[in-house]
Amino acid sequence: MWPQTAITGLLNIKHPIIQAPMILQKPLAPLAITVSNAGGLGSLGCAEMTIEEVEKAVTTLRKNTDGPFNLNFFLHKEPGYNEQINRQMLEHLMPFYKKIGFTGIPDSRTSPLNVFNDEMLSLLLDLSPPVVSFHFGVPQPHVVKSLKQVGCFLMATATTVNEAKILDQAGIDAIIAQGWEAGGHRGSFETNYEEVGIGTLSLVPQVVDAVRVPVIAAGGIGDGRGIAAAFALGASGVSMGTAFLTCLETPITDQHRGALLNAKDEDTQLSRAFSGRPCRGKKNPYSETMINLHQPFTDFPTMYNFSGPLKKYGIDNNDLEYQFLLYGQSASLNRELNATALIEVLAEEALAIMRP
Amino acid sequence: MWPQTAITGLLNIKHPIIQAPMILQKPLAPLAITVSNAGGLGSLGCAEMTIEEVEKAVTTLRKNTDGPFNLNFFLHKEPGYNEQINRQMLEHLMPFYKKIGFTGIPDSRTSPLNVFNDEMLSLLLDLSPPVVSFHFGVPQPHVVKSLKQVGCFLMATATTVNEAKILDQAGIDAIIAQGWEAGGHRGSFETNYEEVGIGTLSLVPQVVDAVRVPVIAAGGIGDGRGIAAAFALGASGVSMGTAFLTCLETPITDQHRGALLNAKDEDTQLSRAFSGRPCRGKKNPYSETMINLHQPFTDFPTMYNFSGPLKKYGIDNNDLEYQFLLYGQSASLNRELNATALIEVLAEEALAIMRP
Repeated sequence: MWPQTAITGLLNIKHPIIQAPMILQKPLAPLAITVSNAGGLGSLGCAEMTIEEVEKAVTTLRKNTDGPFNLNFFLHKEPGYNEQINRQMLEHLMPFYKKIGFTGIPDSRTSPLNVFNDEMLSLLLDLSPPVVSFHFGVPQPHVVKSLKQVGCFLMATATTVNEAKILDQAGIDAIIAQGWEAGGHRGSFETNYEEVGIGTLSLVPQVVDAVRVPVIAAGGIGDGRGIAAAFALGASGVSMGTAFLTCLETPITDQHRGALLNAKDEDTQLSRAFSGRPCRGKKNPYSETMINLHQPFTDFPTMYNFSGPLKKYGIDNNDLEYQFLLYGQSASLNRELNATALIEVLAEEALAIMRP
Repeated sequence: MWPQTAITGLLNIKHPIIQAPMILQKPLAPLAITVSNAGGLGSLGCAEMTIEEVEKAVTTLRKNTDGPFNLNFFLHKEPGYNEQINRQMLEHLMPFYKKIGFTGIPDSRTSPLNVFNDEMLSLLLDLSPPVVSFHFGVPQPHVVKSLKQVGCFLMATATTVNEAKILDQAGIDAIIAQGWEAGGHRGSFETNYEEVGIGTLSLVPQVVDAVRVPVIAAGGIGDGRGIAAAFALGASGVSMGTAFLTCLETPITDQHRGALLNAKDEDTQLSRAFSGRPCRGKKNPYSETMINLHQPFTDFPTMYNFSGPLKKYGIDNNDLEYQFLLYGQSASLNRELNATALIEVLAEEALAIMRP
C-alpha cells in the first residue's frame, strides 16, 4: 500500500505516520494509544517523567494497545551555572514578573528535568518498549547496545547532515530529520541552530543520501500533501506533532487549541526564552523581547525555572501573552478530529497523491 | 506527461521548471537560452541592466530561442539616507577595508540600482516579452494592466501567505512561493524576514490554499526529488536557481563553482551584509561578523556600495573570504552538466517518482 516499507515493516505499523512525542500539562497516553491502535506509531514524551511514571505509563500503553509505541527521552547534559547570565536573565525578566505580580526568585541551582541515566536505562531494559527515541544528542554506546539487545528499535533526531551521520555511526535504527519548520524543541546537538536551520525540503534528501538507515521526515508536515512530499524526498516515514495537537484526545488548553485552529504561517518564532534551547512556538511579547536582546540564555533546562512563573500565570489566568504555545509553521493546516480519523485522512490524502 | 499543466500550458513549455533569474558578473543569456530551448523557462535578472541592455538582451534571446523566456525586475524603492547608520556601517567595515587595503569611502548617496520605472515599462510594452516577473513587491496597477494587455504573463515572489494573497489580488498570473531554503535575495516585502522565514515544505501548501492562481515552488529544490515534492505539495511548477549555477553555461567564478561542488547543508546564512536586504549565501567572516552585531544595515541597494570593495577584492584576488557566493541550502545536490542535460535529468527524476 505504501511505496516504501522500510519503516512500516520494521515497526510493524500500518501507516508510516509517527505521532511526535510532546509534553503538555496533562498525560498524552490516550493520544498515543489511539494513534497506535489506528495503525500509526504513538509516542510518549518521557523527559519530565520519573522512573515510576514511565513504568506506569508503559503498563497503561500495553493494557490499551497491541501496537508498538515510542518512548522519547532528552539527552541534555546537567546544566551549567553562570551567575552573570542568570543575573542578566533576572533583570530582563523583572518587568514581566512585575506585570504578573510574581515576587519570588526562580531556582537557578536545581535542574527541573532529570538527565537520562543508567537507572532509566535499567527500567527500559526491563520493560523492553518497542521503540525508544532520543532528542538533543547521541545515546552512549552502552545505551544503544543494551537497548538493541532487548529488541528496542532506536530513533534519534538530526537537524543537519552531520548530526545524521553521527547518529548513523552510533547505531541508531532510523533517523528523524527535523527541519526548520518544526514546532517545539530543535533536536540539534552539533550546530548553532539559530545560525543554520535547514528547511525540511532541503534536509531530508541530503540526509537520505548521507546515511544507511531509513529517514523519517519531521517539520512542517501538516497534511497528506506534506506526507507525499516527504516520501518524494526519500523519507520512509513522517513524524508529525503539531497536526496531532488539535486531536480531540489531546489535552491542551482552550487557548492553545484556539490559537492552533486560527493559526497563520507567520505566527511562530524560534526562541530560547522558554527553556534555554531553541524551541518554536507562537510569538508573544516575552519571546520577542528576549530574542531582540541578543544575549545568552540560562542553560537548558534551568531556564524553565525562570520562564515558569510566566507560563503558570498565563495558564491560571487564561492569558495568551504568557503561555508558551508550541507549534510549527504549518499549524494553519490543522484539523480538529479524533486521532483515528486524522490518521485515516492523512493516509488517504497522501496515498491519493502518491498513487493517483 | 506532467500531472499538472497549469504552468506548462499557460507558458507553453514542456517542463514546468523555471531557471530562476540570477545576477552574476557576466551575462546569463546563454544559460537562459539553453534552458528555454530545452523545454524549461529561462530567466534573465534585469535589475542591474539599463534600458538599452534589456533591449539588447531580448534581441539576443529572441534570435536564439523560439521558447518563452522571463525577464525579472526588482521592485525596491529609492533607498533612504541615514547618516548615523552609514557611519556605524563604515566603522564596522573599516577593519575589513584595512585588511584588503581599501582606503576609499563608499558612495552612500547614489543608488547602484535603478528603480523599476515607467521608462522600463514602456520598453517592456514595446518588446512584449512572454513572461515578466517581479521580486521585492507588488507591481503598481498600471504596470500589471498594461503588461497583461500586451500579452505578458506575470509572476511575482511571495515569502508568506499574506504576501501571496496581496499578489493574487493585484492580478499576478502565478505566484512564486519562495521558502526559507532559497539562495540569493528573499523576495519579502511585507514581513520582517529574519523573524519569520517559512520553509518551502510549509509555505507551498498554505499558499496553494490561499490563492486562485498557480503556485511555483522555490527554495531548496535541488533535484527531481524536490520537484516531485513540490508537486505533491500542490505546486504547478518549480523555480530553481542554485541547481543551475554549476551548469557548464553559467559564468561563475572558479571559487563559486568549487564551493558549490563541495557544498554542505550548513554552509549558508541569511544576511543583509551584502546588499542591505536578507540574502542567502555562503557564510564568510564578514557576513558572520556583521550578523552578530545585530545592528541596522544601510538601505538596499546602497549597501552594495559598502560591501562592493570587499567583493571586488575577493574576485580580483581569488579570495573566498571576501566573495559573496550566493546559494541555497540544497547546493550539495548540485551537478555539473550542461543545462539541456540538467533539465532532462530533473524531469526524468521527478516523473519517475510521480509516476512510478
